[in-house]
Amino acid sequence: MRIGSALRRAAAISPTRTATTFTDRTHTWEKLADRVARLASALRTLGVERGDRVAILAYNSDSYLEAMYAAPWAGAIIVPINTRLAQPEVLHWLSDSGARTWLVGGEFISMAMSLRDKLLNVRDYVAVDALVPPQGWLAYEELVRDAQPIPEIDGTDNEPAAIFYTGGTTGQSKGVTLSHRNLLASALQTLAHVHWDHNDNYLHAAPMFHMADGLGTYAALLAAAQQTIVSRFTAPAVLDAIAEHHVTCTVAVPTMIDLLVHDPTAPEHDLSSFTSLVYGGSPIPEAVMEQALKVLPQTRLFQLYGQSEASPTLTVLGPEHHVFEGSAAGRTRSAGRATMGCEVQIMGSDDTVLPTGQVGEIVARGDNVMLGYWNQPETTTQTLRGGWLHTGDMGYLDEDGFLFVVDRAKDMIVTGGENVYSAEVENALMAHPAIAQAAAIGIPASQWGEQVHAVVVLHQGASASPADIIAHCRTLIARYKCPKSVEIRSEPLPQTGAGKYLKGVLREPYWRDVDRNVN
Amino acid sequence: MRIGSALRRAAAISPTRTATTFTDRTHTWEKLADRVARLASALRTLGVERGDRVAILAYNSDSYLEAMYAAPWAGAIIVPINTRLAQPEVLHWLSDSGARTWLVGGEFISMAMSLRDKLLNVRDYVAVDALVPPQGWLAYEELVRDAQPIPEIDGTDNEPAAIFYTGGTTGQSKGVTLSHRNLLASALQTLAHVHWDHNDNYLHAAPMFHMADGLGTYAALLAAAQQTIVSRFTAPAVLDAIAEHHVTCTVAVPTMIDLLVHDPTAPEHDLSSFTSLVYGGSPIPEAVMEQALKVLPQTRLFQLYGQSEASPTLTVLGPEHHVFEGSAAGRTRSAGRATMGCEVQIMGSDDTVLPTGQVGEIVARGDNVMLGYWNQPETTTQTLRGGWLHTGDMGYLDEDGFLFVVDRAKDMIVTGGENVYSAEVENALMAHPAIAQAAAIGIPASQWGEQVHAVVVLHQGASASPADIIAHCRTLIARYKCPKSVEIRSEPLPQTGAGKYLKGVLREPYWRDVDRNVN
Repeated sequence: MRIGSALRRAAAISPTRTATTFTDRTHTWEKLADRVARLASALRTLGVERGDRVAILAYNSDSYLEAMYAAPWAGAIIVPINTRLAQPEVLHWLSDSGARTWLVGGEFISMAMSLRDKLLNVRDYVAVDALVPPQGWLAYEELVRDAQPIPEIDGTDNEPAAIFYTGGTTGQSKGVTLSHRNLLASALQTLAHVHWDHNDNYLHAAPMFHMADGLGTYAALLAAAQQTIVSRFTAPAVLDAIAEHHVTCTVAVPTMIDLLVHDPTAPEHDLSSFTSLVYGGSPIPEAVMEQALKVLPQTRLFQLYGQSEASPTLTVLGPEHHVFEGSAAGRTRSAGRATMGCEVQIMGSDDTVLPTGQVGEIVARGDNVMLGYWNQPETTTQTLRGGWLHTGDMGYLDEDGFLFVVDRAKDMIVTGGENVYSAEVENALMAHPAIAQAAAIGIPASQWGEQVHAVVVLHQGASASPADIIAHCRTLIARYKCPKSVEIRSEPLPQTGAGKYLKGVLREPYWRDVDRNVN
Repeated sequence: MRIGSALRRAAAISPTRTATTFTDRTHTWEKLADRVARLASALRTLGVERGDRVAILAYNSDSYLEAMYAAPWAGAIIVPINTRLAQPEVLHWLSDSGARTWLVGGEFISMAMSLRDKLLNVRDYVAVDALVPPQGWLAYEELVRDAQPIPEIDGTDNEPAAIFYTGGTTGQSKGVTLSHRNLLASALQTLAHVHWDHNDNYLHAAPMFHMADGLGTYAALLAAAQQTIVSRFTAPAVLDAIAEHHVTCTVAVPTMIDLLVHDPTAPEHDLSSFTSLVYGGSPIPEAVMEQALKVLPQTRLFQLYGQSEASPTLTVLGPEHHVFEGSAAGRTRSAGRATMGCEVQIMGSDDTVLPTGQVGEIVARGDNVMLGYWNQPETTTQTLRGGWLHTGDMGYLDEDGFLFVVDRAKDMIVTGGENVYSAEVENALMAHPAIAQAAAIGIPASQWGEQVHAVVVLHQGASASPADIIAHCRTLIARYKCPKSVEIRSEPLPQTGAGKYLKGVLREPYWRDVDRNVN
């Protein structure tokens, strides 16, 4: 099935029901399908061909959602860009994907302007929701208005529909290429557990460029659920949206749930419509879960574990295990069990399947597993070897198939639901002229789960303050990836015989007394 | 995803929970997976290779279910045989499919023995649940006991896993070849609506050879739901099973529901566990629905519309539309709307999409659409032309995407949930030496929806009684396909210019005063 089929189905079964609500704009499914077919038409007129990449850098909006559906309708591939990236990173994503057309939200136009000379592959710049587009730019709303709707460009569901970028262990982001089938398989597998349908109203609260909300983008489409959109996550905006639009469900990260359920205005809002809350990225701290069950007594909690490479869902922990008492309790530290349609196993370093209880690499297969990494055939072959997605995460399965994630082979820090690859931070640190050795690790942070912490050694005679080093990083990588704290050591960092830093030794003093959330 | 993946997942998440219950036998998921891997191993040892056909003719049992999973585990294709067929039909299914191995239930061994000389393609005969297998036969339980379990034979999910035979418009049954993907896609799409999971207990009440219960076979596997099995449908057996095993769900045909909810012992049974009832084949008569809502107040009703070629689900009508009052009422005559993952449209005879409200052929696409008809490339190409499954049924979509089935292009009679193709009945009738002209039509029958009625003209000077004619048919076709009533006319049957009988004219007097259930 293609994304276009799901859109046609939704328009057929709910033509006059609300499809999108954003600020004061509302579109029915019939209207949304029409706007998607017009935007796709405009893209084709610009010269976008089958397999071309269309990038988008913007805060959440109904236009964003239209672009997510329209690029594949036109036979093209959407490339959502993280809004928190630093300029060099945006440049990399745009160049690496070879985007032909770039949709840019008003807040990002100046960044796009300053990158323009370096982006030889981008032919068309489209301003989304900007009052006055710059000279030479196209205006999104005019494109949609002036185009004649076209039928979906024919194709198979094994063709790429989206490239979601993910941090890389080598310090460069990699594009995860997902087909129509991948995205809709993950959506359907998830729907079989969370039970959303055409009577639901999904809230885009997390950023749309992120695969967590991406799940909602495709699942809500497949379910023909209404979609309510907030531009950027803030607890008050989300609480207002739930109460005003009778939102029933969302996908969030635990940090957001923490902010939501502890917001002082939460009790003043009517949240009774909100019946299912899906979160991913890490287990929910017990205190947050307790508060969530108090503030949202009618809400079913689901934890999903996965990654962009799995479009993204691999396992689910359902409401029956979000309890503190009874026989189902004690699983809240687990990531749940393989979704219907997905198979999860643990493999040793020689790719043999390990028995119950033994720690190894988490591997998975299913229709939701990516086509591969964009333009990286070798990494793709390696990651998908033997027909299994090698997640790079370490974990074990218990005797009832519950997955426990115990470590990340990819040396990753999860902060506020975002994955930060240590290598990316270390590359930025090492670009500072005063730094001789650098390690980035995750240390406990109540609001973010973890925060990025740098341990560095300076060159003989050189000098730099923690503030200098953080400021330096901000010119190279997204703010959320930059260290929040820096420790400058005079002794060399502890290393393995092979010259790798012993991250465990560096992390140990911080985590000694903490119930660590590892996944 | 392959059927084997779903079985491994179920065994991983519910190893010690009950997988199957039949008579006094109970197997856990771990045990079931082991038995399937042993049976597959035994089949391989017999010489079954990838793509070979393994037929089964038996009443429902846990062994039957094992065979359904084991043949694909061994890389082979299962061919379930209708237990109601007459010998010549069984011969056709076995020969046409080229089955290499035949599993035969105790009740059918004598039939198999008498066909043996004509079945040159069948190498191995396996007696299922027979006390003493005939000379030269293998015993099912010994095969399972003596084999070493093997891992699933590698393969893609586009390979055939099952061939379900369906009546043919040309008077011969056709094999519907379904891949692993087809079967599991239909199951997952259905699960996204009916919401079964590992806490459910599915009852195999309808015959396992039929695609209605086939849906349950794959959906319960994917959901890792417990499976309770009754050998043959009778209302008391089903009511007892629900009460004793705390059954939660089943797939049935309206005739069965009618028998169940009107059974005098129904009120004496504790049916409170039974929370979802899926039925297909035709809309439910209002009186039956009323009684069902009374006897099973906690049960959610789902109508599915589909056909074997769609593995089988195309549309679903959910509990919210099984009501007599309120804004959602008035849809009970509809077949519901396209399932998530499936696209349904109406096409004219030139294969253009028709607008809302206009009657044309019902067409569909999705991962659940068959690979094709077994050994019938031309019929396959014709039926799947343009990438759409042409169902042969006529209908229209209303403004909210609800499908109304108004006629069957395939000239079919639906009696007790079974499809009877008029052509098959007419072929049998015409084989009678006294009959010159014959038409088979469906006429109203309270318990069966429709019953098969024959209108015949005899040769000049020939004579035959209705009883003679019915007895003659029973030697050629399944009892349920045979006319229940025969009208002998002296005038020639009304025909079109092209020489086709005017079935509408023949049917009209019977249906004049009836609220007809057309789908």
